[in-house]
Amino acid sequence: MMKILGISGSNRKGSYNWGLLEAAKEMLPDNTSLEVFDVSRFPPFAQDHERDPPAEVRLFKQKIRQSDAILFATPEHNYTITAVLKNAIEWANRPGGDNSWNGKPAAIVSASSGPRGGARAQLHLRQILVDLNMYAINQPQLLLARAQDAFDSDLKLKDPQTRETLKKILETLASWTKRINSG
Amino acid sequence: MMKILGISGSNRKGSYNWGLLEAAKEMLPDNTSLEVFDVSRFPPFAQDHERDPPAEVRLFKQKIRQSDAILFATPEHNYTITAVLKNAIEWANRPGGDNSWNGKPAAIVSASSGPRGGARAQLHLRQILVDLNMYAINQPQLLLARAQDAFDSDLKLKDPQTRETLKKILETLASWTKRINSG
Amino acid sequence: MMKILGISGSNRKGSYNWGLLEAAKEMLPDNTSLEVFDVSRFPPFAQDHERDPPAEVRLFKQKIRQSDAILFATPEHNYTITAVLKNAIEWANRPGGDNSWNGKPAAIVSASSGPRGGARAQLHLRQILVDLNMYAINQPQLLLARAQDAFDSDLKLKDPQTRETLKKILETLASWTKRINSG
Amino acid sequence: MMKILGISGSNRKGSYNWGLLEAAKEMLPDNTSLEVFDVSRFPPFAQDHERDPPAEVRLFKQKIRQSDAILFATPEHNYTITAVLKNAIEWANRPGGDNSWNGKPAAIVSASSGPRGGARAQLHLRQILVDLNMYAINQPQLLLARAQDAFDSDLKLKDPQTRETLKKILETLASWTKRINSG
Repeated sequence: MMKILGISGSNRKGSYNWGLLEAAKEMLPDNTSLEVFDVSRFPPFAQDHERDPPAEVRLFKQKIRQSDAILFATPEHNYTITAVLKNAIEWANRPGGDNSWNGKPAAIVSASSGPRGGARAQLHLRQILVDLNMYAINQPQLLLARAQDAFDSDLKLKDPQTRETLKKILETLASWTKRINSG
Repeated sequence: MMKILGISGSNRKGSYNWGLLEAAKEMLPDNTSLEVFDVSRFPPFAQDHERDPPAEVRLFKQKIRQSDAILFATPEHNYTITAVLKNAIEWANRPGGDNSWNGKPAAIVSASSGPRGGARAQLHLRQILVDLNMYAINQPQLLLARAQDAFDSDLKLKDPQTRETLKKILETLASWTKRINSG
Repeated sequence: MMKILGISGSNRKGSYNWGLLEAAKEMLPDNTSLEVFDVSRFPPFAQDHERDPPAEVRLFKQKIRQSDAILFATPEHNYTITAVLKNAIEWANRPGGDNSWNGKPAAIVSASSGPRGGARAQLHLRQILVDLNMYAINQPQLLLARAQDAFDSDLKLKDPQTRETLKKILETLASWTKRINSG
Repeated sequence: MMKILGISGSNRKGSYNWGLLEAAKEMLPDNTSLEVFDVSRFPPFAQDHERDPPAEVRLFKQKIRQSDAILFATPEHNYTITAVLKNAIEWANRPGGDNSWNGKPAAIVSASSGPRGGARAQLHLRQILVDLNMYAINQPQLLLARAQDAFDSDLKLKDPQTRETLKKILETLASWTKRINSG
């Protein structure tokens, strides 16, 4: 059984990026599970208290370590990832010597109501993953622009092409994870 | 009188980036003031509550609007700016139509204990400034690597070359602000 | 009279980015001229011969120095600017101490047949401009996606909204240039 | 036998980046070969002639396809990779549907005489690799600053720590290549 941990960078439960993670649950490859963890309520990362993190952060770090792969769904705020996502990344990366992300395979998806679909945020996140020592798949890419057209009013992903791309991303992540861990 | 607002992206009061802002206070050009605002205690930005921000955020937005220029001192965490700084940027950029940063001239300095001095964080921050419609000076640049060698044990900036660069940055920011506002 | 120098990063004369520069000629603000320089035939920049550049490069450097502002029209190849544009940038930036770009105001536009419109190439180019000490306007932005829909078969820009944005960019560049040079 | 193809982005034969590739030849893991290909004399990539590339470009594309992994040694010019390297990337990526880079594992090293060691160029190159569908190792990293101190007058890499890092990069690239190709 391959465990995928889903993380949304949105601070709104009803966001399209949450919607992508919900849709992903319905189209998992065989022998794969997806659990979504809400990081939007973490307190601001404080270096002075990093060695005594709150319980929810401890649980988050444990979940990451127990996962085989990570699925990021990231909004784009001001041409980069959200403070919420960066905050979760910092908590899990610290304290020094306890980088929970280390070596994890990953995939990145993004949705926005604008025309670019999160292209800049994905690139920033990929740079961050280099430092975290994570390995993200390159293709296929999901940069969902004008996301309001792809979801229905219940935040269900209805667009067939987007669903197909998301399904392929999950399949690619599963086979990528096997290759990465084969050594 | 030109008002500069100093913002540190560090979540530690004793950080080298705070030290740079403190040092800047001692070498201001004539007719220039520098006030440093602590953004490290802001709650996580929540889109659902952005129209009713906490009092400290309201004060922050007011301070930005009353300033003529912004001086960012940014650490680099995971090849980008900190969650603390991104959080402050998002609060001041929202809600929609009330971007407090709009049109402000800026300068960016960074300090780190590592060998790169924050080069990647500065580039990410510059990309973010494009969206915020801020105008940062290009030169001189201060990317203080191995910062521990430039400060004394009281977090006072002692390195003469770094002091000289910081002084020139403040002078350049002052003349740049005049040019930007000349239209 | 304000002189703008237009530079296309495309290696094809019939490209949409050339089309944007041609369209710009028709909508210049008063007291402004636009000359387009073809950099696509430059030989590869060779550091060993930089002190004796070919005649066309000498002319290019002269044109830049005589210009008040630069208008870049950049395609996106492999998530960044083209080799053709980077090559022109390097020739004009060298040899050391003779950076022809130094201090020039600029605007960036991009067109592509894909859905992103050159967002990544524009960000890379902006980073490069920091090193060249150039100052690009932030807004409005022109990232023309699916450019084939905005041009007619004679490569004439027909889309009204794109024309309006391009016109505003030229006006903003003109007033920005005045402010930058006001010091 | 694992074949690594080495590519320098420098346009000078005596550059430190060429020196890194030469040093790499002396410390290859067992059952690994390294051939260095000179891309600095390629003509500028011209989209109009991409289907009939010059003989040296054909040979280059063939070498890439026959390689198991790529080792890039990249200078940093103007905060990004050189025009020479971008030009080679474009030739090998085109024409459409014949991306010679597709799926190749890679490692990136950089050397510069300045204090940053190519940090920005490496990040730009990593973004480009996403589009090329290449997979670069994250660690260890070699960003050789003040390279003149690490080489002797015959351009031989003498610094023990840099040699050790380069050796580990080659070992990591070899095991990474096996994992990537294990699927």
